[in-house]
Amino acid sequence: MGCLFCKIINKEISAEIVYEDDEVLAFLDINPVNPGHTLVVPKKHCENMLDASEADLCSLISVIPKIARAIMASGQYEAFNVAMNNGAIAGQVIKHLHFHIIPRRTDDGCHLFKGAARSNDELNVDGEKIRKHLSNETMEQ
Amino acid sequence: MGCLFCKIINKEISAEIVYEDDEVLAFLDINPVNPGHTLVVPKKHCENMLDASEADLCSLISVIPKIARAIMASGQYEAFNVAMNNGAIAGQVIKHLHFHIIPRRTDDGCHLFKGAARSNDELNVDGEKIRKHLSNETMEQ
Repeated sequence: MGCLFCKIINKEISAEIVYEDDEVLAFLDINPVNPGHTLVVPKKHCENMLDASEADLCSLISVIPKIARAIMASGQYEAFNVAMNNGAIAGQVIKHLHFHIIPRRTDDGCHLFKGAARSNDELNVDGEKIRKHLSNETMEQ
Repeated sequence: MGCLFCKIINKEISAEIVYEDDEVLAFLDINPVNPGHTLVVPKKHCENMLDASEADLCSLISVIPKIARAIMASGQYEAFNVAMNNGAIAGQVIKHLHFHIIPRRTDDGCHLFKGAARSNDELNVDGEKIRKHLSNETMEQ
């Protein structure tokens, strides 16, 4: 398999690993927003969140607080973002599920996202469509 | 308690709710990046990820794939970001833990984050600091 993160997990390619357990590996992003920017990945390959098991997602999210605490202490940060890109259009480059932990400073120039106000009527139309698809999914199970 | 999201959970303030179970509520962001942009919150109040229980985090992450699938189907999206802001500097406005599910389109103008290359030596220094704090945390447990 040509997956870069699988090669890092298998220690075929080196990375700056900060945490490892049986299910999860965490290593530094080589293009950090700020120093300490870390990627947290499941050892078992899956492409994105829709492809992951509930157990894998729980393993990942469970270790993020303690890694985030260490990142914040390491650089005297006071805040952090946790983010996952699912799909190329969402900015996913490596097709192996990964959470970013991004430590933040005031005026670091990082703007995660910016929305625009939507009316109650518009929101109601949007919500109705999502509820319809959610109930379809529930019925199919 | 003056928490806006607790008031939405308690149905004291209305919101466009798309999903609800015993532990989790999901409703539309009133300032969406794209239509269908949803917030997923634990019903039990906690301020951010460092303040949350492992059980709460697992409950949250476990429902995100099915909600994301419905959002994507509702707007014929092909990709989505999942993001959480922890702390004001990271963009957290409401001090009640919440994941954003942000459906994405090509050229929607949303740039989640952009890093810059860091040398192996710099990464090694960053990693060493984080590992030191992680081992401190482990020893304190």
